[in-house]
Amino acid sequence: MNGRPALQPLPEDVHTAADYAAHAQRTLDPMAWAYFDATAGDGSASRANRAAWDALKLLPRMLQSLPGLHTECQLLGRSWPTPLLVAPMALQRLAHPDGELAMALAAAAQGAGMVLSCEASLPLETVARAMLGDAARGPLWLQLYPMHDRGVTLDLVRRAEAAGYEALVLTVDAGVRAQRDAERRAGFRLPVGISAVNLPPPGSAVPMGLAERLARAPTWDDVAWLQQQTRLPVLLKGILHPLDAREALRLQVAGLIVSNHGGRTLAAAAATAQALPAIADTVGGAIPLLVDGGIREGADVLRALALGADAVLVGRTVLWALAAAGAAGAAHALRLLRDELALTMAQCGIATPQAAQASLLAR
Amino acid sequence: MNGRPALQPLPEDVHTAADYAAHAQRTLDPMAWAYFDATAGDGSASRANRAAWDALKLLPRMLQSLPGLHTECQLLGRSWPTPLLVAPMALQRLAHPDGELAMALAAAAQGAGMVLSCEASLPLETVARAMLGDAARGPLWLQLYPMHDRGVTLDLVRRAEAAGYEALVLTVDAGVRAQRDAERRAGFRLPVGISAVNLPPPGSAVPMGLAERLARAPTWDDVAWLQQQTRLPVLLKGILHPLDAREALRLQVAGLIVSNHGGRTLAAAAATAQALPAIADTVGGAIPLLVDGGIREGADVLRALALGADAVLVGRTVLWALAAAGAAGAAHALRLLRDELALTMAQCGIATPQAAQASLLAR
Amino acid sequence: MNGRPALQPLPEDVHTAADYAAHAQRTLDPMAWAYFDATAGDGSASRANRAAWDALKLLPRMLQSLPGLHTECQLLGRSWPTPLLVAPMALQRLAHPDGELAMALAAAAQGAGMVLSCEASLPLETVARAMLGDAARGPLWLQLYPMHDRGVTLDLVRRAEAAGYEALVLTVDAGVRAQRDAERRAGFRLPVGISAVNLPPPGSAVPMGLAERLARAPTWDDVAWLQQQTRLPVLLKGILHPLDAREALRLQVAGLIVSNHGGRTLAAAAATAQALPAIADTVGGAIPLLVDGGIREGADVLRALALGADAVLVGRTVLWALAAAGAAGAAHALRLLRDELALTMAQCGIATPQAAQASLLAR
Amino acid sequence: MNGRPALQPLPEDVHTAADYAAHAQRTLDPMAWAYFDATAGDGSASRANRAAWDALKLLPRMLQSLPGLHTECQLLGRSWPTPLLVAPMALQRLAHPDGELAMALAAAAQGAGMVLSCEASLPLETVARAMLGDAARGPLWLQLYPMHDRGVTLDLVRRAEAAGYEALVLTVDAGVRAQRDAERRAGFRLPVGISAVNLPPPGSAVPMGLAERLARAPTWDDVAWLQQQTRLPVLLKGILHPLDAREALRLQVAGLIVSNHGGRTLAAAAATAQALPAIADTVGGAIPLLVDGGIREGADVLRALALGADAVLVGRTVLWALAAAGAAGAAHALRLLRDELALTMAQCGIATPQAAQASLLAR
Repeated sequence: MNGRPALQPLPEDVHTAADYAAHAQRTLDPMAWAYFDATAGDGSASRANRAAWDALKLLPRMLQSLPGLHTECQLLGRSWPTPLLVAPMALQRLAHPDGELAMALAAAAQGAGMVLSCEASLPLETVARAMLGDAARGPLWLQLYPMHDRGVTLDLVRRAEAAGYEALVLTVDAGVRAQRDAERRAGFRLPVGISAVNLPPPGSAVPMGLAERLARAPTWDDVAWLQQQTRLPVLLKGILHPLDAREALRLQVAGLIVSNHGGRTLAAAAATAQALPAIADTVGGAIPLLVDGGIREGADVLRALALGADAVLVGRTVLWALAAAGAAGAAHALRLLRDELALTMAQCGIATPQAAQASLLAR
Repeated sequence: MNGRPALQPLPEDVHTAADYAAHAQRTLDPMAWAYFDATAGDGSASRANRAAWDALKLLPRMLQSLPGLHTECQLLGRSWPTPLLVAPMALQRLAHPDGELAMALAAAAQGAGMVLSCEASLPLETVARAMLGDAARGPLWLQLYPMHDRGVTLDLVRRAEAAGYEALVLTVDAGVRAQRDAERRAGFRLPVGISAVNLPPPGSAVPMGLAERLARAPTWDDVAWLQQQTRLPVLLKGILHPLDAREALRLQVAGLIVSNHGGRTLAAAAATAQALPAIADTVGGAIPLLVDGGIREGADVLRALALGADAVLVGRTVLWALAAAGAAGAAHALRLLRDELALTMAQCGIATPQAAQASLLAR
Repeated sequence: MNGRPALQPLPEDVHTAADYAAHAQRTLDPMAWAYFDATAGDGSASRANRAAWDALKLLPRMLQSLPGLHTECQLLGRSWPTPLLVAPMALQRLAHPDGELAMALAAAAQGAGMVLSCEASLPLETVARAMLGDAARGPLWLQLYPMHDRGVTLDLVRRAEAAGYEALVLTVDAGVRAQRDAERRAGFRLPVGISAVNLPPPGSAVPMGLAERLARAPTWDDVAWLQQQTRLPVLLKGILHPLDAREALRLQVAGLIVSNHGGRTLAAAAATAQALPAIADTVGGAIPLLVDGGIREGADVLRALALGADAVLVGRTVLWALAAAGAAGAAHALRLLRDELALTMAQCGIATPQAAQASLLAR
Repeated sequence: MNGRPALQPLPEDVHTAADYAAHAQRTLDPMAWAYFDATAGDGSASRANRAAWDALKLLPRMLQSLPGLHTECQLLGRSWPTPLLVAPMALQRLAHPDGELAMALAAAAQGAGMVLSCEASLPLETVARAMLGDAARGPLWLQLYPMHDRGVTLDLVRRAEAAGYEALVLTVDAGVRAQRDAERRAGFRLPVGISAVNLPPPGSAVPMGLAERLARAPTWDDVAWLQQQTRLPVLLKGILHPLDAREALRLQVAGLIVSNHGGRTLAAAAATAQALPAIADTVGGAIPLLVDGGIREGADVLRALALGADAVLVGRTVLWALAAAGAAGAAHALRLLRDELALTMAQCGIATPQAAQASLLAR
């Protein structure tokens, strides 16, 4: 697991990243498929994510001179080739034996960023070594849940700093729900040898009531505390309400990720493309703004940029590719997204992601 | 029927209250299913109810400190644990042998309220005894149709007062239609031993023409008359038009329930979530405002609160659970709704139902 | 054919007028079904008619005192029991052997009006005798196409006057298209013994080119000419554009019927419920305003009244009933519509059709 | 191939041009069907084209005197019988052995225009001879891609001038994408004897990267250069953004064609009927404005005129007719469109295409 994984052959009939989903469903153990595909309730938030991107229609531009077109993304004092990051997803070895290592290599190879889940199934140091070895890589960030045990958090932060992670992504939308997901997962049994190796082993499985969970739930003070503990920039993931964006600005967080957790936490939640514009208005360019949820093709990335995002996170779309064809598949999916983005930018007459604006959109 | 019903085992695959519907359909006699599932015309009012809730998207809030989060509802000088009441539904022994007794025990056990139908299949005193024995119970209200024979009404009112009912709910949306429903029901034969035991036995079955029905149809004067006959607060159920809300305020009724009778009286009727905002504007918080129709999950309750309701009534959703698993099932369904509400409130950053407002909703 | 047709038994499973469609489809010869069911192009105008009514949601009123509720309609100096008229439909003996005679008896019996098509399959005098014998009947109008041969028109007008018809309905939306429909009908062979008996037998079947058809197409001058030839009021049927309504007012026509010919002339046409409000604004109550297209239940009638119509025409809905059960069926369908209208009016708190207004509709 | 192709019999069940699609799918080799039917991505731009026309509802006018109704189109100092042109489509011999020759004869016979693709499978001179021989024909234009090798372009321009082409249509929406389509076509093998005979044979098949393609991509300078090389008017095809229309006006191009390439270049693109109004506002009648994409019936042509277009291009609709029945089929499809347009104009009360305006549309 420490060496470079061997490259699998790619399936022949994949023309867009989304084509990997069918392959993944055939490849994966049904329980693993269900684990990653799961959504809250009846799945309406997940469907709404997708429908909201589809409803945004582009007005392409013609005959622009775009000799230096690039998809380079500049965030947090660093630039990298493409405004894509792999979203934090737990336990990627459930999707493929090479897990997060393969994903990081794929991201690095395609100039994308990687947000490692704190529930990764490989040591964060292993993943960092793989990623940092590539000069053209995108950023390497570590995702954290605000944990009740600050000692555990601090340990992760120190390890992240030591291993070369460049930012921390605090997932703020699962404070209450995550526990519940955990309860649900009780019925889901991890295969032998796959676990969240970066965290202390789960203690007693006594389920908490909501009151206890609320008492332990993170608050803005936890954000401030985390900011004080580290020299790393701290971004917040899971913001949907403009008032939360305002509070985040007050705390001078390093960036925001508009997300509804891929539709996994609240079926009634607004689609991210529905929530993004008001957040972008609030942020007004003061700090980096990212978005995820239902990004499936290059045009979706441009749609997000046109609504005010600086970059996007891609979750299931690249995970299905990992499941289907390991590192090579994940790299292929990212490559397809990156090429589609460049092509769509060219079609829309913009030479840089930063040039995207609302006038690209019809009506 | 006077003792506590024995508790049935719960089905294993129920994760949300709505999951009970399929169980109920398998369990119930087809005629009983049809009786409860029936809607007016082509069912468009019932579908519209559901679609209107679904279209309301929540914008969750993050990182709020909510240590004392509770779902406590305060209405009519009383508070109870959760802003849920079981909607008045006739002849619940058609759904389950334990009928309204099981329903009341379930409501009491979950801190929900119970609105007993005047067409209940068990004596209202029996139901009251079961409900009032639980200190954490929600309110116990008796639903009445404005009956032509005021003597019958008065008898019911006196019995309700004596039995401990805390309010009367006058259903005002079936004045004309109810008769017609009764006609339709002619084809429906009640099983031996099940009847509306709190009412005098139906007299001659001579169907009335519309003119006669209109002459007997209740008016605002009947509301005033009822208010004069009792010390109990009188709420009106079935209000959809803001002008009716205004008239109700003039009469100083104790509360309003926005309802289209679960889509059973007029297929062309507006969805309750469509009608609620204008009613809430008219009421302006002056009196309690409740709503029903298509409430199926905790998020729907919060959506209703965000539009201005103080509490909601749940009908078929809990009835299917009663049908599938008796008192235990109904209690389970209410528990699921209550927990989902608390969780959704936590996700939306509000600590009390009273804190819900329109800014929770996208757009 | 001159006596009263014998009454057929009614099908047992018809609860609303729309339920007759399935019976008709089983009963009718496929060619006859296709003839009556036919729509222009892909049927989108017909579907749009229906969808536009469905989208209008009613806000019922409660507890109104409506002792004298009636559905009486007053138009052209006459009043009749219900604001329904049977729309002009050609060759009704294709639907049932008793044809227009049965339809007229049904209309008269239910206090509805009858607009006889000039392409009727029975003599207009026969139909008039049947209709006029009933004191509670609605109006009896004769529909005309503006025919190139004014002599034919004059002959019809004189016969209509002599027979007791009370108004003429000039169908203005088929001037160009009707010819084309006729061409199409070439493939359709009338059964022996059924024909448009009130018109001269069709001459040479040489199809005309568009130029010739346009040269013969009726204009506003033909309306003025017709008005001069008769003491009968002349209504126009087929108005969709407000500018045509304005021109009709200038000509002092006796009334307007908003119609897209049941979706039979132009697939891209606006739905009648979509076109009605602007026409109602233009007319401003100055002359009677009627509408047809997709009226299938009592609530649709009230929706039309709420948008500004004074009465509605019902086409296929009552024709299917005629096909399924003759005069008894047609009368039953009209009765169902009439009762549903009265009931829906009662539910919406209005005592007369004239009291309907836009505030009955949600939003 | 130089003589007049023999006329095939027409299928009997074709009543509208769109009916040819099913015939074509049965007739064509699956690879040829796929080639012509292909759309970008998931086909959403193609579906959106269609849905956008369908959503536009017409408000027909009645009783207008339209004795001189004609569909004559006046553009670029020329007039022709009908505002239809066959859209440029490559390699029409894949659809039918008679290819572009049959298409040109069909267009000429029906008074429609023809825009020959520079990727035609017959010599442009052959097609011109066939077209120019018909006095009642519409315009004959040659479509060009802005090619990197200006010598190739100049050669085509000179041949077009010599052969009698009346305008050049520069397709500007495939500068970047076309290359990619070409790559994709690699898997598609042209049958022996069918090729783009007017272009030099393709050189080395080394696929270019995006950077190289961008460096070679056409710009507004290429438009200006082309304008300087020829006395022929130059129109631009593929404009969707109003800012591009403004730039085109600045360059004094001879006309604009709003197009998303039939949904073939960008799945996320706006529908042409969605983009057309803003372009029409920008152009303000200063130069001819055309549109294509999803035009399938005469009403669509009128919808386009009502939104501000002067004429429309028809692609697949007429191509399927060519595939099904050669020149006779293509002529039939154009004839049906032309007749439907005239009829719809008559129904909407306008005597010339120029009289169409937005007030024809509901709401």
